[in-house]
Amino acid sequence: MKQMIEGIEVRAREELFINVNPIQAAGRLTPEAMKATLSYGDGYSTCDWCGKPFRLDKIRRPPISEFHVELAKFVGMDQARVVPGARRGFQAVVSSLVEKGDSVVVSSLAHYTEFLAVEVVGGVVKEVPLNERNIVTGENTARKIEKVKRETGKLPKLIMIDHFDYMFGNEHDLRAIAKVAKDYAIPFLANCAYSIGVMPINGREMGADFLVGSGHKSFASPAPSGIVATTNEWADKVFRTTQMVGDVTERKFGIKEVEMMGCTLMGANLIAMMASFPRVRERVKLWDDEVKKINYFVGEFLKIEGNRVLSETPRKHTLAKVDTTRSFDNIARTHKRRGFFLSDELKNRRIVGEFPGATRQWKLNTYGLTWDQIRYLAQAFHDIAKKYGIEVA
Amino acid sequence: MKQMIEGIEVRAREELFINVNPIQAAGRLTPEAMKATLSYGDGYSTCDWCGKPFRLDKIRRPPISEFHVELAKFVGMDQARVVPGARRGFQAVVSSLVEKGDSVVVSSLAHYTEFLAVEVVGGVVKEVPLNERNIVTGENTARKIEKVKRETGKLPKLIMIDHFDYMFGNEHDLRAIAKVAKDYAIPFLANCAYSIGVMPINGREMGADFLVGSGHKSFASPAPSGIVATTNEWADKVFRTTQMVGDVTERKFGIKEVEMMGCTLMGANLIAMMASFPRVRERVKLWDDEVKKINYFVGEFLKIEGNRVLSETPRKHTLAKVDTTRSFDNIARTHKRRGFFLSDELKNRRIVGEFPGATRQWKLNTYGLTWDQIRYLAQAFHDIAKKYGIEVA
Repeated sequence: MKQMIEGIEVRAREELFINVNPIQAAGRLTPEAMKATLSYGDGYSTCDWCGKPFRLDKIRRPPISEFHVELAKFVGMDQARVVPGARRGFQAVVSSLVEKGDSVVVSSLAHYTEFLAVEVVGGVVKEVPLNERNIVTGENTARKIEKVKRETGKLPKLIMIDHFDYMFGNEHDLRAIAKVAKDYAIPFLANCAYSIGVMPINGREMGADFLVGSGHKSFASPAPSGIVATTNEWADKVFRTTQMVGDVTERKFGIKEVEMMGCTLMGANLIAMMASFPRVRERVKLWDDEVKKINYFVGEFLKIEGNRVLSETPRKHTLAKVDTTRSFDNIARTHKRRGFFLSDELKNRRIVGEFPGATRQWKLNTYGLTWDQIRYLAQAFHDIAKKYGIEVA
Repeated sequence: MKQMIEGIEVRAREELFINVNPIQAAGRLTPEAMKATLSYGDGYSTCDWCGKPFRLDKIRRPPISEFHVELAKFVGMDQARVVPGARRGFQAVVSSLVEKGDSVVVSSLAHYTEFLAVEVVGGVVKEVPLNERNIVTGENTARKIEKVKRETGKLPKLIMIDHFDYMFGNEHDLRAIAKVAKDYAIPFLANCAYSIGVMPINGREMGADFLVGSGHKSFASPAPSGIVATTNEWADKVFRTTQMVGDVTERKFGIKEVEMMGCTLMGANLIAMMASFPRVRERVKLWDDEVKKINYFVGEFLKIEGNRVLSETPRKHTLAKVDTTRSFDNIARTHKRRGFFLSDELKNRRIVGEFPGATRQWKLNTYGLTWDQIRYLAQAFHDIAKKYGIEVA
């Protein structure tokens, strides 16, 4: 194994392979972000020119302040902050709005970090059931709110629903849900970890009170990095500044924001987000083509006898959950490498990112692959199927 | 201004200058960390080989799991986790132990992020007064605990004291404070943001229940990065795993830790910490020489008439607060560049990191400078003093 420094191998997965890993695809760095990372790697690199009022999002050199303004515009909200991962965005909002025993309505496909954000403050999650197509609808959300009200005597304090979920990559009906939220006067957080940074997002049009995005998942940025954005209406609450006073020293800490823990995402990760931003802004305009590519792939993939796609079709997202129980898993059952035969075959073709050894239900994400790579990927699956005697239409 | 990409200038502060910035000195990357950052920059880079039980600190390739074990040993505790900055370590501990209205005893020199960690959960900070040498003692801590007990009818839920504070870089009497904490059976968190990674630390010997360290401040790592470590006694509480169950899906999330928000410090920042670790382990053994260097510098600095050092002397830390009100500030008062004359003079000598424009009380940190650079730095101040007619003994 090549070792860069003692014990740590060189990582060149994105350089040497076609990587279809479900969570890695849209987080690979742009060349600009990679340069930024090198230049701003040192710990407190962003603090060189920090002056009054001494808060990260106010720094003008490098233009961090300007980036925050542009970022809010980019997602159609009034104010934005960067945070160490989408999960820290959930945490900030939940911690501001939810108290012990309060209910929070989430999707039946909610990411586990939404559960944890509620658990930290002692809240209770209430899942909205999916419809028959694995979609969260406004109707089911309203029904769940009524159920919570009936059972607990109180309305939920927050509705938190994923724009595209991590399991199927299905699109959930955020506009309808936002409308329901408004009807009940319950604040609504749209988890856009799989959408901000890959497709155009407008929180205002969507009707969301809070948007959360992920830098390392969808914004071509290093982990941990993320975004939380809100309206002016809610900013005072979630971005409230510290009110603490030292009882001995009478110290106060100015405009440091409580839920942000003061300065949030200092250093290389923020500068990498800023460095990727111009390309991210351009790439969201190309989302339709990304969707065409996954649909082309899915079409070819379904030509293999027994293959199924569990995500909604036609795909609206580049993440897809597939089922190969009646195709590749038949081979795995008698192959001496078991399910790893598929990983081996893919790796021999310079493809990685499927879950190693999995031949029943697994996920892939084609985001960012070129048309040539997409065709190559589809052909690779055809070739593997044929090699093992599975019919390809 | 050189621009790397649109709007973001190249940062080469550590390459081109002697940087005495108080918070940046021990966070500059090692060459290994810089390489790691490049290689592992892509978002979810650490997740390539993530398998059961699907938690960051259990990943064996790269050897993240092994690093966690070594890290705990390195700080003399039973268990350690990485977090996005020391502040997220405070937050995790406070959120586990403190409820609304509870008191937390902190230093009169506590960092603002300790205040915020308490504010998030609705707790109240109670500051321990400093002694006449600006030190937090066990005696004063005990007295404060008694005062809190008297005034609120309850003992504080947590004692959180800085090993070396951010203001003077003074060493506080953690062993005595730990003893007091034990006497009252109150858990004790030692904030070692200025010590873990630059000097040998043993939490067990110190008597701490929790240690918090900073990657970007003292561990040659990118921001945000940090460490929270504890004993087996407290690990079950602060690193408790999720108990949430989906009410519709009955989903559970296995061993994800609530206060860590599941996986904590994924990606380049963690790998950079790991890459810096071998050097960090070595450099802490050289702390005595670092202390000799600051004391040499302080000695030379005090030869300038009117100069004072506000930190305790002899210095036990490379961070120092100085007062030049009766020397350089005399010049600033009539200089057309005001206080910036000093910044100009220093910059002309390739020295940066003092607070631009400040000529009264300001801080510097000599960590990591070579003896040649230390002598050069001292000489530079002598030269500037002489140039403006200030006597140098």
